[in-house]
Amino acid sequence: MDVELVSIGDELLLGFTIDTNAAFFAREAAALGIQVVRRATVGDGAEAIASAVKEALVRTGAVITSGGLGPTADDLTKPSIAALFNRGMRLDAAIVESLRARWKARGWPGELPEANRAQAMIPEDAVILENRHGSAPGIWLEDEAGRWVAMLPGVPREFRGMTRDVLLPRLVGMGAGGTVVRSRTLRTTGIAESALADALGPLAKDPEGVALAYLPGWEGVDLRLTVRDLPGDEADRRLDAAATALRARVARHVYGEDDADLAVLVLEALRAQRMRIAVAESCTGGMLGMRLTAIAGSSDVVHGGVIAYDNAVKTGQLGVRPETLAAHGAVSEETAREMASGVRERLGVDVGVSITGVAGPGGGTPEKPVGTYCVAVDVRGALRSFRASSVGDRHEVRQRATQAALSLVRASLGR
Amino acid sequence: MDVELVSIGDELLLGFTIDTNAAFFAREAAALGIQVVRRATVGDGAEAIASAVKEALVRTGAVITSGGLGPTADDLTKPSIAALFNRGMRLDAAIVESLRARWKARGWPGELPEANRAQAMIPEDAVILENRHGSAPGIWLEDEAGRWVAMLPGVPREFRGMTRDVLLPRLVGMGAGGTVVRSRTLRTTGIAESALADALGPLAKDPEGVALAYLPGWEGVDLRLTVRDLPGDEADRRLDAAATALRARVARHVYGEDDADLAVLVLEALRAQRMRIAVAESCTGGMLGMRLTAIAGSSDVVHGGVIAYDNAVKTGQLGVRPETLAAHGAVSEETAREMASGVRERLGVDVGVSITGVAGPGGGTPEKPVGTYCVAVDVRGALRSFRASSVGDRHEVRQRATQAALSLVRASLGR
Repeated sequence: MDVELVSIGDELLLGFTIDTNAAFFAREAAALGIQVVRRATVGDGAEAIASAVKEALVRTGAVITSGGLGPTADDLTKPSIAALFNRGMRLDAAIVESLRARWKARGWPGELPEANRAQAMIPEDAVILENRHGSAPGIWLEDEAGRWVAMLPGVPREFRGMTRDVLLPRLVGMGAGGTVVRSRTLRTTGIAESALADALGPLAKDPEGVALAYLPGWEGVDLRLTVRDLPGDEADRRLDAAATALRARVARHVYGEDDADLAVLVLEALRAQRMRIAVAESCTGGMLGMRLTAIAGSSDVVHGGVIAYDNAVKTGQLGVRPETLAAHGAVSEETAREMASGVRERLGVDVGVSITGVAGPGGGTPEKPVGTYCVAVDVRGALRSFRASSVGDRHEVRQRATQAALSLVRASLGR
Repeated sequence: MDVELVSIGDELLLGFTIDTNAAFFAREAAALGIQVVRRATVGDGAEAIASAVKEALVRTGAVITSGGLGPTADDLTKPSIAALFNRGMRLDAAIVESLRARWKARGWPGELPEANRAQAMIPEDAVILENRHGSAPGIWLEDEAGRWVAMLPGVPREFRGMTRDVLLPRLVGMGAGGTVVRSRTLRTTGIAESALADALGPLAKDPEGVALAYLPGWEGVDLRLTVRDLPGDEADRRLDAAATALRARVARHVYGEDDADLAVLVLEALRAQRMRIAVAESCTGGMLGMRLTAIAGSSDVVHGGVIAYDNAVKTGQLGVRPETLAAHGAVSEETAREMASGVRERLGVDVGVSITGVAGPGGGTPEKPVGTYCVAVDVRGALRSFRASSVGDRHEVRQRATQAALSLVRASLGR
């Protein structure tokens, strides 16, 4: 089934709000074989809404709108689209009742304001789509030829909830689906896109007949496999085969699939070996600690750390030797190794991990240009370290250095 | 001037990528009086591109596309739109030369691949829009009636750079502008939306005839003032008047305007008073250190810190007294104060700042539910602290606690 999306709102058109509803719907729908073939964004004007929806109805006959269902005068989605279908508007008593009950239940003062009654005005012969996530219900309008518009609220929580609860089940019930778009992602880190392609050899392009995309980012290069126009079982079989073939070639760089987070995997590896970790951070200033503690339940393995931004903290709190700093500089494997060992010993844990680097934009030298970083890991006295270089701005350099440190911890734990 | 945007790419349509280019363009353009009146998103197919661009040309006659200018076979923007204008394609020798030079300058192996030459194919009689941010140049096509399409790359860095360098100056040169949409944002923190509205009194709605929106987020509540359909000077005058009136009512909660970052303001306050700072973080695990060191040049005032996630680190590295932990718990103002003083003394700096809290989802108690946090600041021995509570998930609690700590540092420095 092909559908079009029309996102409604001056905020979207003016760029004050980024439209995340459309991408959410597209991903959820694709997994069920429902394809978004076009999206439009228009402002709150009645004419703009009507023309965009009309064009989509003529083209595709299946339209989902988001936004413009609120209680205020600039919420014109319902009357504009009702007019397209030659329908009048009526006040729905049941909706008024539920709005009133909601108002009371929340303990808001006085009676339901008149303005809010606009949310109970619906087109004649419309189907009401229940909204369990907010006050404005959705609306479904359909003509004799079977062309339809589903109107959903624009608030992301409500749009997402209703998409899952109400809209997608309804479309599937209408016989949407069959062939699907499905995808799977292998997440790699520590290897460049071109090196990955080399390592994959003949699999670099469309392994097992599955489309392969390379998506580089600061976490590494994601390998996204996508199949289209196949029944669900066959789609999954092909994805399995392709993922297995890719893993056979680049296993040591693959740390997980889909939404896998390297920090989660590091915590699991530590937990499995009953080890505790501490961090020593210079250029990242706390980012590695933040990533590890972003995971709920991390306190059983994360002990703490030292942010050694100034060299005085490296020597004073971590025991880095002044001679090491003098001979090799703060950004060196030698310093990183002393930082890792120092934090491990001083905080009394099994694993110490450190980062030091030149995040930029200033501070680069010919020998150590901006983007240079060193990471080190000390696992009960066994040291590993490397030096690398990152592209990107200050933020990206810090992100990449943090990811590299996590990757080295994982490798050092034999994962 | 009214323009339409057409965003091109299967990635966008499938929801794998969120379109941030369109919002960026809309904001930048609005400030110059150029209005985006409609946006469309289509996939990589030639037919879809041509039909969306054609409709926009008929409607508005002024179209900006993003995406589909790359070197691969699925990049069909240029030929699809050239066909609409009845133009052939030609290889541009100067572009080939610049691609080749770029290839060499980067030290990539071998000669420029044949595929990359596609980026040098341009429609006949096109104007080339210089791209100083990437390899694919932009293209400007115009017909006898003055209808035009500007084609820009989809990579956000390139799209943004070219919008600022090339496209907007060109549109302004064509006489775009006149009446404008302009906005200004006052950033507040440490006060709830409803309390702000109360404090603003009669100014809570449309002060000085300027539209006022309340935008709550983890950094605080932004007050966005917007004026439309006025000449630039008059718009600025109204915004000034409204901003001044609002500031008079809520001055102590306003920390800056527009993109102001509280971390930057804290660094400036420290620098002005020649003070150095160190952080002591429990539940935020390094987030405060990360925010302060995210700012280039922070090393003159940021010394470092201790991530005291485990209580053993609070006592061992910060000198928090076991009796304090026993009597008041890790999440208490008492503990926060000892953490702040401990990090200040042990790292030998002027200012120590600390955070301890229950980020959740576990760990809450009736007395200290999830979202409770305490922050403390020690400026050369003068202590301030408070306890507060945050809504939201683990990430948001940590973000809000970090912002609260920055806000307390700023207040403690008399800013």
